Amino acid sequence: MSTTALRDLESILKKDQIKTDEESLKYWGRDWTTYFDIKASAIVFPHSTADVVALVQWARQNKIALIPSGGRTGLSGAAVATNGEVVVSFDQMNKIKEFNSVDQTVVIEPGVVTEALQQFAHSKQLFYPVDFAARGSSQMGGNIATNAGGIKVVRYGLTRDWVVGLTVVTGTGDVLELNNGLVKNATGYDLRHLFIGSEGTLGFITEATIKLAANPPPMNVLVMGVTGLDAVMKIFAEFKTKTPLVAFEMFSDKALRKVLDSTGLSAPLATECPFYVLAEVETRNEQDQEHALGVFEKCLEEGWVLDGVISQSEVQAKTFWRYREDISESLAKYSPYKNDIAVAISKVPPFMEDLDQVLSKAYPNWEVVWFGHIGDGNLHINILRPEGMTKEEFVKECRKVDVMVFDAVKKYKGSISAEHGVGLTKKTFLNYTRSEAEIQLMRGIKKVFDPDNIINPGKVI
Amino acid sequence: MSTTALRDLESILKKDQIKTDEESLKYWGRDWTTYFDIKASAIVFPHSTADVVALVQWARQNKIALIPSGGRTGLSGAAVATNGEVVVSFDQMNKIKEFNSVDQTVVIEPGVVTEALQQFAHSKQLFYPVDFAARGSSQMGGNIATNAGGIKVVRYGLTRDWVVGLTVVTGTGDVLELNNGLVKNATGYDLRHLFIGSEGTLGFITEATIKLAANPPPMNVLVMGVTGLDAVMKIFAEFKTKTPLVAFEMFSDKALRKVLDSTGLSAPLATECPFYVLAEVETRNEQDQEHALGVFEKCLEEGWVLDGVISQSEVQAKTFWRYREDISESLAKYSPYKNDIAVAISKVPPFMEDLDQVLSKAYPNWEVVWFGHIGDGNLHINILRPEGMTKEEFVKECRKVDVMVFDAVKKYKGSISAEHGVGLTKKTFLNYTRSEAEIQLMRGIKKVFDPDNIINPGKVI
Repeated sequence: MSTTALRDLESILKKDQIKTDEESLKYWGRDWTTYFDIKASAIVFPHSTADVVALVQWARQNKIALIPSGGRTGLSGAAVATNGEVVVSFDQMNKIKEFNSVDQTVVIEPGVVTEALQQFAHSKQLFYPVDFAARGSSQMGGNIATNAGGIKVVRYGLTRDWVVGLTVVTGTGDVLELNNGLVKNATGYDLRHLFIGSEGTLGFITEATIKLAANPPPMNVLVMGVTGLDAVMKIFAEFKTKTPLVAFEMFSDKALRKVLDSTGLSAPLATECPFYVLAEVETRNEQDQEHALGVFEKCLEEGWVLDGVISQSEVQAKTFWRYREDISESLAKYSPYKNDIAVAISKVPPFMEDLDQVLSKAYPNWEVVWFGHIGDGNLHINILRPEGMTKEEFVKECRKVDVMVFDAVKKYKGSISAEHGVGLTKKTFLNYTRSEAEIQLMRGIKKVFDPDNIINPGKVI
Repeated sequence: MSTTALRDLESILKKDQIKTDEESLKYWGRDWTTYFDIKASAIVFPHSTADVVALVQWARQNKIALIPSGGRTGLSGAAVATNGEVVVSFDQMNKIKEFNSVDQTVVIEPGVVTEALQQFAHSKQLFYPVDFAARGSSQMGGNIATNAGGIKVVRYGLTRDWVVGLTVVTGTGDVLELNNGLVKNATGYDLRHLFIGSEGTLGFITEATIKLAANPPPMNVLVMGVTGLDAVMKIFAEFKTKTPLVAFEMFSDKALRKVLDSTGLSAPLATECPFYVLAEVETRNEQDQEHALGVFEKCLEEGWVLDGVISQSEVQAKTFWRYREDISESLAKYSPYKNDIAVAISKVPPFMEDLDQVLSKAYPNWEVVWFGHIGDGNLHINILRPEGMTKEEFVKECRKVDVMVFDAVKKYKGSISAEHGVGLTKKTFLNYTRSEAEIQLMRGIKKVFDPDNIINPGKVI
């Protein structure tokens, strides 16, 4: 950055809103990805929408690129600075500004941490249902920019479904107040939905109005050992149609073994099964509980379920969840290569079989661990690093695997990124999920909102 | 249309796919609005996405504008031909193509009538929950293009929430397959959501994948007489937080009187109250029913509710709904002037009071009837034509009222069209709800999708 540009910047923001020391540049210049060379010119901390407008005007004038940055828990490199950009961190815009008990909405700044919003909702006897492992550091602005999903999508949907208003600053410095918290609004293109999931390439989110849900009723968690993937689908259809299903997760026996080894937990079932599903069901009262048990028994009778347990207490429900939630941590020591993909729910079995064949043919000795949010068609494929192979060799081979995986995704009209986003990591693969015409239209839209290409340039498209 | 253009058209479509007789031009050239001069050049009936692509290419070549047309039940003039356009009717693309019981999705052509989809879902023990009076003629393509709402939005959301995939043909003739029925898909801008609610200005919807809901549990309907608007809000908050609320409607005593007069129904309550609310609540079992009654009793104890009844049977529930659903028909003989607006739910009382004052000052002798989907902040304001005033005089005065209404809407950051859309009727008022910057961005987006301005030109923006 030129000294003139820096001097101009210092006239816009206060001294403690600008950091240019090496440590800060490295710290705020990256997300949870590890393989990019970080190169940021400065980190700035706006306090208001007006600050962001001033920053955009400054950036336009000085032809400097800006990168929106939240909790930096992203896994796609969308908030990474690799090219001398100025990182705009929302760490200092983290106020919960307004709560409305009738509308059941809360107005927040983008830097509010997911868990802080969840706790705030709880304090009002309400519920913010989007939930995932990074809840303690991810920020709401980032969640909105990536349309974060998580573990309760079956019942509560994605971040998109809870955003009823957005204030954004576009690449021209215009401030847009989108939808203003309305439930019904049929007045032209819903630009709010365009911003949600755009990974910070169309402008900065500087305020959001979030809808809250009613406090959830009590839940029961079932763990069921199943005969195979076809049975998983049948059980899913049965539970989805007949119970208020909140979550439906799947993991292979291989995944379960890793969890048992690393945590010391005892196996959930006496019977060893090729796959397990975890179903969480709302049970408002005893009648609901009996009903859920009835659905479970039908699955047993049909032969889809080999063995199963239902939680008898909240503590037990939490333990059951560990069989699924502790998988990632249990695999960590194998430096697994991860993919986060989605297909339509019903296509999961043929897709997994296809991919299993391709992978076991190409890499017969590799260990592949499958698990995922089956209720959303979202699979996490974890390939464990074979003993004796260096990290570099392994990653190089895995890049070849990417292409095989994405070819299969394309065949099944799936998504190469179910919830992590495209950012830098999947940019070159975008055409496996989106057509050339779509990518051209996205570029056209980007130009409308950011004609000088100063907001997160080079990301996604 | 030139003879060359017509000859070209006849080489694209079969003879019975083109109508140019006067009667057809009038019939398919309009929607439910009545005050536009209809002028269409031809009506065409595509049978496939390929037909639509050919039509768009033909229109580009011949510089002829195309208008997408569904069930023609629109109230905003978005599907009206006033300028020699060619109307593209989807009456002959009305097949339900594919059902998937695991995904609980159905692939449909745009001409499928809302009620046909509801019945199809029912036949599969599932539920399509978007419901409104025009269910028997409105088509799903039109519902998607206007993001139709209706009476169950509190519990089930809008059309937007049920569309998991769209095939569209843009103004350049490109075919886009958007989202392919996926639940999770974080790969760039979600163009599907841009098309939903765009009133056919960005392209043609030629196929949609619709998610279905589980069959709903039994319901109870409560009708409560209340002290005033503040009480309405408190009752809403209580029910919304503590029960599985499906609908929450409000109507004034004046509205109720009109219904009783015209239908011969007896009053729901012995006590006459200024306002009434109708709440529909899911009651899976006796415990749920007792719980709902408890919430009702709390509202009585707090003094918000003066008197109330709860339905004891499905038949009675249907009768209770008539107090609300028969309002429009009961008012018809007064040729009411209608507005369909929305504000945030909590702003309904001050907004209504403000507007009431403005209107009663300007038109002290006019009768204004209020009712609406309070659970969504959606109000229908019906002004009854004073006796002795001609229709023309009345409409002229009402245009002045529009400005007063929209001024109030703007003050409360509301929407000038909650669910009907902008089309032609509200185009000149769009800036009461959307900023100049937003309108410019919408125009920019329109240009990206339809550079030659051949798809529904002059509508919305």
